[in-house]
Amino acid sequence: MKGFAMLGIGKVGWIEKEKPQCGPLDALVKPIAISPCTSDIHTVWEGALGERRNMILGHEAVGEVAEVGALVKDFKPGDRVIVPAITPDWGSLEAQAGYSVHSGGMLAGWKFSNFKDGVFGEYFHVNEADANLALLPEGIDPAAAVMLSDMVPTGFHGVELAEVAFGDDVCVIGIGPVGLMAVAGAALRGAANLYAVGSRPVCAEAARAYGATEVINYRNGDIVEQILDRTHGKGVDRVIIAGGDVDTFAQAVKMLKPGGRIGNVNYLGEGDYIKIPRVEWGCGMGHKTIAGGLMYGGRLRMEKLAALLSTGRLDTSRLLTHRFQGFDKIEEALMLMKDKPRDLIKPVVLV
Amino acid sequence: MKGFAMLGIGKVGWIEKEKPQCGPLDALVKPIAISPCTSDIHTVWEGALGERRNMILGHEAVGEVAEVGALVKDFKPGDRVIVPAITPDWGSLEAQAGYSVHSGGMLAGWKFSNFKDGVFGEYFHVNEADANLALLPEGIDPAAAVMLSDMVPTGFHGVELAEVAFGDDVCVIGIGPVGLMAVAGAALRGAANLYAVGSRPVCAEAARAYGATEVINYRNGDIVEQILDRTHGKGVDRVIIAGGDVDTFAQAVKMLKPGGRIGNVNYLGEGDYIKIPRVEWGCGMGHKTIAGGLMYGGRLRMEKLAALLSTGRLDTSRLLTHRFQGFDKIEEALMLMKDKPRDLIKPVVLV
Amino acid sequence: MKGFAMLGIGKVGWIEKEKPQCGPLDALVKPIAISPCTSDIHTVWEGALGERRNMILGHEAVGEVAEVGALVKDFKPGDRVIVPAITPDWGSLEAQAGYSVHSGGMLAGWKFSNFKDGVFGEYFHVNEADANLALLPEGIDPAAAVMLSDMVPTGFHGVELAEVAFGDDVCVIGIGPVGLMAVAGAALRGAANLYAVGSRPVCAEAARAYGATEVINYRNGDIVEQILDRTHGKGVDRVIIAGGDVDTFAQAVKMLKPGGRIGNVNYLGEGDYIKIPRVEWGCGMGHKTIAGGLMYGGRLRMEKLAALLSTGRLDTSRLLTHRFQGFDKIEEALMLMKDKPRDLIKPVVLV
Amino acid sequence: MKGFAMLGIGKVGWIEKEKPQCGPLDALVKPIAISPCTSDIHTVWEGALGERRNMILGHEAVGEVAEVGALVKDFKPGDRVIVPAITPDWGSLEAQAGYSVHSGGMLAGWKFSNFKDGVFGEYFHVNEADANLALLPEGIDPAAAVMLSDMVPTGFHGVELAEVAFGDDVCVIGIGPVGLMAVAGAALRGAANLYAVGSRPVCAEAARAYGATEVINYRNGDIVEQILDRTHGKGVDRVIIAGGDVDTFAQAVKMLKPGGRIGNVNYLGEGDYIKIPRVEWGCGMGHKTIAGGLMYGGRLRMEKLAALLSTGRLDTSRLLTHRFQGFDKIEEALMLMKDKPRDLIKPVVLV
Repeated sequence: MKGFAMLGIGKVGWIEKEKPQCGPLDALVKPIAISPCTSDIHTVWEGALGERRNMILGHEAVGEVAEVGALVKDFKPGDRVIVPAITPDWGSLEAQAGYSVHSGGMLAGWKFSNFKDGVFGEYFHVNEADANLALLPEGIDPAAAVMLSDMVPTGFHGVELAEVAFGDDVCVIGIGPVGLMAVAGAALRGAANLYAVGSRPVCAEAARAYGATEVINYRNGDIVEQILDRTHGKGVDRVIIAGGDVDTFAQAVKMLKPGGRIGNVNYLGEGDYIKIPRVEWGCGMGHKTIAGGLMYGGRLRMEKLAALLSTGRLDTSRLLTHRFQGFDKIEEALMLMKDKPRDLIKPVVLV
Repeated sequence: MKGFAMLGIGKVGWIEKEKPQCGPLDALVKPIAISPCTSDIHTVWEGALGERRNMILGHEAVGEVAEVGALVKDFKPGDRVIVPAITPDWGSLEAQAGYSVHSGGMLAGWKFSNFKDGVFGEYFHVNEADANLALLPEGIDPAAAVMLSDMVPTGFHGVELAEVAFGDDVCVIGIGPVGLMAVAGAALRGAANLYAVGSRPVCAEAARAYGATEVINYRNGDIVEQILDRTHGKGVDRVIIAGGDVDTFAQAVKMLKPGGRIGNVNYLGEGDYIKIPRVEWGCGMGHKTIAGGLMYGGRLRMEKLAALLSTGRLDTSRLLTHRFQGFDKIEEALMLMKDKPRDLIKPVVLV
Repeated sequence: MKGFAMLGIGKVGWIEKEKPQCGPLDALVKPIAISPCTSDIHTVWEGALGERRNMILGHEAVGEVAEVGALVKDFKPGDRVIVPAITPDWGSLEAQAGYSVHSGGMLAGWKFSNFKDGVFGEYFHVNEADANLALLPEGIDPAAAVMLSDMVPTGFHGVELAEVAFGDDVCVIGIGPVGLMAVAGAALRGAANLYAVGSRPVCAEAARAYGATEVINYRNGDIVEQILDRTHGKGVDRVIIAGGDVDTFAQAVKMLKPGGRIGNVNYLGEGDYIKIPRVEWGCGMGHKTIAGGLMYGGRLRMEKLAALLSTGRLDTSRLLTHRFQGFDKIEEALMLMKDKPRDLIKPVVLV
Repeated sequence: MKGFAMLGIGKVGWIEKEKPQCGPLDALVKPIAISPCTSDIHTVWEGALGERRNMILGHEAVGEVAEVGALVKDFKPGDRVIVPAITPDWGSLEAQAGYSVHSGGMLAGWKFSNFKDGVFGEYFHVNEADANLALLPEGIDPAAAVMLSDMVPTGFHGVELAEVAFGDDVCVIGIGPVGLMAVAGAALRGAANLYAVGSRPVCAEAARAYGATEVINYRNGDIVEQILDRTHGKGVDRVIIAGGDVDTFAQAVKMLKPGGRIGNVNYLGEGDYIKIPRVEWGCGMGHKTIAGGLMYGGRLRMEKLAALLSTGRLDTSRLLTHRFQGFDKIEEALMLMKDKPRDLIKPVVLV
């Protein structure tokens, strides 16, 4: 079968591979809609996962079940399914502890285009199919649904980590597709004033549409000062980090009230340390809790998020600035994520 | 001063009283907008609080500060303020334990028209003014804001007690003004399918506008069966009880998934026992948690909810089916709550 | 193979059966130490689960692995293992929601002597062996460890459901073996005054040894009054129900402070309704939360509890008033649980 | 009146001052037992709070009420009381949000020897007496009880921030008096393996007595490696930081499992940044939550902790290695904290 792969650090291309084996609990799936992710860019061009050779890329997909293992009960060939980027081993000790995403080791619930081939192949392998796939609800556009693989659960997890409550003042740093879903998620959890930090006009406009009450542009001055200005020097109740780098945390701590929480869902690709400013962190005693975590995956999560699409609570279609038709358009879509033109939020490829 | 009072069980009327005393931490407030509540009806005509003579009624108000005690720092005469129905003693052990509403005894954070005169007087008394009043934000209609005294925090507290999460299926039983705010609150916390149980057309229409995906009419059959039908026999993740009586809990338990939660905010005025059906409650082991509590009051709560009005997340004006002008219209407004005409959701009196 | 079985309601006896099949994820285990449970008594003599014919009894065991399925990685024949009474299907939606005990339906994580043969056979079957077995730590007496199958996790879960915190006043109702473990667990979570309600001297003595500060005997008067007397009329912060019946909840509600929690782990075998007294429950608004749930099972739970034995934090041996040697002594041990002699807490059979 | 004061940075001495004024909600208290704290040392010799002139030191005291304000209801002259180091303004917005310790600003619930004179005077002032004092229970040694002002609530708060659960593996870094109380608190919350990091023999011995299963000496090698060795490379579930400096967090993150929590209660007096190692923090996605906060104060906290002394759950007397008699011994006791002789854990002065 054909797949679009990382050939080595800095190199991508089409390769031919054996169709993956389907174990007794597993499924093979053919892509219907797929989307490249900034993580794919990090993986290939920054070597974020280290060297990988001839590894098929991609971890965001809606697909059609092609084959299921003997122990799979709830899915059959022909079923149209949403595939989460994170597909845990549900019996692991970590999953039993409530952290399925770290099943088998930190971040090891992330398997596609990490420990095995990703979803940019004619077929891809899904472990524990009954526990990790979700039926695509009737009437939902596969292109909209593919945003549930990673963008929505990642952005929404930032909101959960930050524990947004009714009437909170919230700042979301970063308004790429994940940040925009954090904005939408914060609005959907009852945030009042919702500051979104970013600069690209297409994203700023989307942020407002998703519920930001104001977009803060870092080009207009220090974002900490801008936030403190707007909050009478008090700061916000919650900060969600969905962009930036290891230095972003210092800003987040400075704009946060005592008793507040930071929820990070930004993958930090470089830098030795995240630096927490001692004084503004209350000399260790300010109750400014710092949480960060990879999105939750699995079937239940996908079903719950799909229900938000079905009921019209969330509209992911606004993210999809670029739509491609045909499996062979994956490369073009991926390069778009690499080059980030001004009008891009997120591309999708319909196969 | 004049006030509209409960003269005894079953009797109301205008009375003349001394202006209340203002202690060093307190404020005297003159009403700007007030609203009668079903609780006033229970208090007078069902004797829910026992005998009370010549007690001024009312606990929902927006007002203007007339006088403040010597130790009050943040408010001054002339300030326009939102007054919560619940005004705790913040230093009490109960408040320190996180249950300010029970400061000094179960439910004893509720003072207006319970332990002291209510807000339907020319002046009314507010204890711990700095901790219990909130400034009315610029540009907010006092009539809309008076819904923050009780209707919004009560409905929203049901959502909190039920711990609604992203994508949950939720049932709200009762769609009077509190139930409608529970519907709005559940939508604002990320509920997906949101079933509202009620029958009056004006309320059903409002429920849909506030985010209900479907209105379940108990006249069309057993509500448990209707809910189980719509959820493939699984039931819902959360039930919020905002109406009905002691028997409503049995329905709630039956329509709830294991691991689910019931959040009750309905005041249960009669009946000896709430009856939990043993088998459907998993013989004591089904993890169907039953929580019920009086709304949280105080300044912070009012400020946070007011921010939801200011940012346009919540529009309470839809509740206000009947608006009156003039202090003397209180009686008419109250009788409306007693008689519940078909087109009523909630009346408000602008003074 | 031989097994001690429920032949029908009210009848027990030895039967001969096929050795169970071992699926790819499963294990077959031979018992080393087993213990009958009050649930076995309910199952047989009260027909609590309905009619069951020729079903091998028992769900508390330490054993030796005899066979493992092809997909089992962490266990091999000869391993000595602790077997939890609850063995969930970890990929189920309920497990993903945090309620593995209800995997596949309410209480359906309970499989032994419920949906399949129990542990009182020469061999017994364990589903998802990697996720549901735990190695017996070196140096731990199997008789002590078999208390981890059910008595400890059930008692401790009551403590978790009640959310006992530092310095809380706690009442544990019922001081059979589960209640005693609730007492031990409450002490181990930082309870201060810890009232244990019971009457049998052997249990009362054990309750004191496990940390009860006082044993309340219901024969000395109403337990609600006794608790209110000792708490200056305020009541306790938490109540754990580990005995009694559907009427016990009314007592629990009455002795509980507003803001308190009830954690029930008592299996309620009869009665149509649990009755919550309306007035003492604050007319629905007292924040007296009522939680009840079946114990958490699975490997991680067993490992964590075993670590409490290994580190000497918990000593279960005090529960074991009656020790038997030999597989054929199961009947005698079971009848002891049925007859409850005055000196019995819990019997164990070493095979 | 006389008081032992910070005269300026690096200088201490006895001074004469006016007796403090007692406002309507306040109390004046005369010390019975007081104890100097490492914070006093930081305040004076490291200028941790900046310049302070002629400020009476001390924030740990048991005393006798000398005078109460007109609005104080629950205390009267002659009452023997426990005084928490943190005395919040309970009506503040921060307290309403659950963070009373930050009432009026980050850490501003800490008033003694910070914003006003401390407890090393003949009289000291307590704000909101009804909400911030607790009666000393009959039969409790004032010297033991003075450990409830700061050492116990600080150590125990580390345990709460780390959310220690049944059977957890826990590491407590630092075994001064606060660290020892974190050890005791972790054991009292159900920790299994409990590693205490420290080196002084008197503290190591006390750590074992308070429940540490092993004392890890950093002089024997990198503590991260020592912990990973003992946990089969997995790390611990929780880390409580009660000593060290800004660099200690990197060790804590490295020895922590994904899904774990760090609870910091160490006051970080110097360094610009706490540095979180990016890779071991899961590149921002490891769910290793970092929490840090000042102890909770107030009356309820003191009452709950006092109940742990009364019921014998906790014995603080082991901390008291040096007892002095007489108000004039404060200086000697303070210098002991400064010089930290090998046999010191904590001194106390009985007045």
